[in-house]
Amino acid sequence: MLHDILIKNCSILLLSHSGTELIEKGFVSIREGVISGLGPMADFPGTSSAGRIIDASGRLAMPGLVNTHTHAPMSLFRGMADDLELMTWLNEHIFPAEAKSVNEEMVYWCAKLAAAEMILSGTTTVADGYFLEDIVGDAFVDCGIRAVIAQGVIDFPAPGVPDPALNVEAAEHFIGRWQDRNALITPAIFCHSPYTCSPETLKQAKEAARQKNVMLFVHLAETKTEVAQIRDHHSTTPVRYLESLGILDEATVCVHCIWLDDEEIDILAGSGAKVASCPQSNMKLGSGIAPLKKMIAAGISVGLGTDGCASNNSLDLFFEMDICAKLHKVKDLDPTALPARTVLEMATTGGAAALGLADEIGTLAVGRKADIILLDLMQPHLQPFYHPDLLVYAAGGGDVSDVIIDGKCIVQDRQILTFDIDETMAKVRELAEL
Amino acid sequence: MLHDILIKNCSILLLSHSGTELIEKGFVSIREGVISGLGPMADFPGTSSAGRIIDASGRLAMPGLVNTHTHAPMSLFRGMADDLELMTWLNEHIFPAEAKSVNEEMVYWCAKLAAAEMILSGTTTVADGYFLEDIVGDAFVDCGIRAVIAQGVIDFPAPGVPDPALNVEAAEHFIGRWQDRNALITPAIFCHSPYTCSPETLKQAKEAARQKNVMLFVHLAETKTEVAQIRDHHSTTPVRYLESLGILDEATVCVHCIWLDDEEIDILAGSGAKVASCPQSNMKLGSGIAPLKKMIAAGISVGLGTDGCASNNSLDLFFEMDICAKLHKVKDLDPTALPARTVLEMATTGGAAALGLADEIGTLAVGRKADIILLDLMQPHLQPFYHPDLLVYAAGGGDVSDVIIDGKCIVQDRQILTFDIDETMAKVRELAEL
Repeated sequence: MLHDILIKNCSILLLSHSGTELIEKGFVSIREGVISGLGPMADFPGTSSAGRIIDASGRLAMPGLVNTHTHAPMSLFRGMADDLELMTWLNEHIFPAEAKSVNEEMVYWCAKLAAAEMILSGTTTVADGYFLEDIVGDAFVDCGIRAVIAQGVIDFPAPGVPDPALNVEAAEHFIGRWQDRNALITPAIFCHSPYTCSPETLKQAKEAARQKNVMLFVHLAETKTEVAQIRDHHSTTPVRYLESLGILDEATVCVHCIWLDDEEIDILAGSGAKVASCPQSNMKLGSGIAPLKKMIAAGISVGLGTDGCASNNSLDLFFEMDICAKLHKVKDLDPTALPARTVLEMATTGGAAALGLADEIGTLAVGRKADIILLDLMQPHLQPFYHPDLLVYAAGGGDVSDVIIDGKCIVQDRQILTFDIDETMAKVRELAEL
Repeated sequence: MLHDILIKNCSILLLSHSGTELIEKGFVSIREGVISGLGPMADFPGTSSAGRIIDASGRLAMPGLVNTHTHAPMSLFRGMADDLELMTWLNEHIFPAEAKSVNEEMVYWCAKLAAAEMILSGTTTVADGYFLEDIVGDAFVDCGIRAVIAQGVIDFPAPGVPDPALNVEAAEHFIGRWQDRNALITPAIFCHSPYTCSPETLKQAKEAARQKNVMLFVHLAETKTEVAQIRDHHSTTPVRYLESLGILDEATVCVHCIWLDDEEIDILAGSGAKVASCPQSNMKLGSGIAPLKKMIAAGISVGLGTDGCASNNSLDLFFEMDICAKLHKVKDLDPTALPARTVLEMATTGGAAALGLADEIGTLAVGRKADIILLDLMQPHLQPFYHPDLLVYAAGGGDVSDVIIDGKCIVQDRQILTFDIDETMAKVRELAEL
């Protein structure tokens, strides 16, 4: 057999419905972008040859993580203003900074900076939503990260869409430009929220997404203020409102979903809609804690997201997993709530399912896309390594040594191979006027 | 002027009562274990010479972090059993593992492994409490980390103290062996808790600590179960109980302090007692959320701790800061609660004050002990660097490049200089029978 890449002598993390399993010393082979073989070293066919061999002794191979929600270009605004009331933060800092800074150059370099952080911390697939999303797509292609890129739709003048009457049309053109253009990229539409988009905009955007067969994302039930606004304007709750508009189905991803009653969870589950949960952003902005246990129990596909790094302020999904698992334990005063394994699924198979990519990514198995990360386990905080739960409670993005996406080596020994990260950091520093 | 070490061209983080401040491009000089000079490069005396010069361009110098509570040797038990009910975890996993494994060899190597993790993630001072604490002291001295080592006192047979009737006497001997022995080490006593120590043991231990002029640590008000137990046995609450025994004064550190009423916070503040808060352990074990805002507002010196890594499962104080700041925001649904600056103080000056070391460590200033860490800022998740709050919300222990403790280089470019970490990991793996 001929392989493009052969990883050998590594531990391998397998995810299944019954839990996590480790192959102690195994191999993964890659050919034409997909996993062509996988198993214990003892089963490795001796006659194989490979274009590149990685001896990964002391390392763990696991599926690359799936970030189901971010706004990559906002890396320019990370740490610019923290610890403020939400409306002060948005109106006095973020919105003025966006009005001043967002243009094609900014979006390209800042999306690249965010991609660098994500790749180096083990994320191999990301769902992004922002303005000028074509440029985000260009940046992601140049970086080599797999992505769902969702063009923003909002009923205000926006970068690239000065006339909001054309916002859905602009999104349709965007889909047309990206469908079937690059194996890494899946286009989608991002309706900002039920309080910044009219019912007509929401319905038109969903109709466009249905016709183009792409996902629709929408921020939903993030704050108590939003719930009050929807009640004032539409005399119902956010989920019921979207249901009444016909927005909820299996190709809709609802982001945040914090303030839901039990019946709304059933409505979401019944519709087949997916959820992207962003616990750290929800904590830092003081928004609330999503009812993850109930949503997962109801059968909803729930993925984990970092949100934009201006409200987190990190794009590292390992820490997102850690905080997520702990937050729900203290919320319920129950150390068995939301086990590490469940959170690991959210960041891998759950995220893949949420993005409609369940058959392609999220686990290591023959025939899946070769989106693989290697972690260096030979470090004091990861020894002894008794159980994969340690990946949630002790590992961090900095432990990722190598990253393979779509069968290509993107990171080797923590060095990005696809682009010049120093140039990217320098460009973003210029944009920040630092 | 002659310096042992000169760090130049770095950013420098200064902490003061009015907030945080950055020197953009500065120097820190070290002589005989203390900071001998510090300021902008423009003010650096040109005639100086130094034994060693570190050009720290692109890096940030900040005070080493202070971990006010851990059980270092428990690194052997990290990840052995997670996501279990507290009593199942303790009775079926941790206590049997301790009964089987705790001996001098285990304590030495596992304390060393924990010290490696702490040093590499920027902790330069740690308060530890365990059995066979002399051995922990030996391990810490060999590693070069500053420490308050507290000999455990409990009313059960314990490793090194088979007869609990002698537990306070054993602690007195321990103090005698360590007082004035090594500049890095301050001995203390750790009474396990008000539910595992009798009132007589608590009083005797506090009396011994007073006579020897050392700190007394005690776990306090960690769980609702403990509060119920104290109510059942002593008809009062944990803080009032310790107050009635005369245990609370400025040399007492109360660990956890989750389940307190407002009057108990006033009692603690009035007594001068200190608090060590361990938010991640409290989250993971489902114990609860300490009333940090109220305790700090009452004027209590509050430090941050990781707790043992078996209940965290990390000893990285950067992530402890991050989670701590976010947890209190979502608890209050208020993004201004517990600002990053306050949490940074908890992990530095607050921790120093909690451990009675306020005049020696916790800030960078001429005359203070030279406990300094350098962070590599030239990374995608730390660029652009607008404000020191980013250290809480985006930095991690893995960003620490160099560590100086008591004027000695302990870590250089992420390599530990004081001992062989590979040997330590191999020894602990043997002990774990992996």
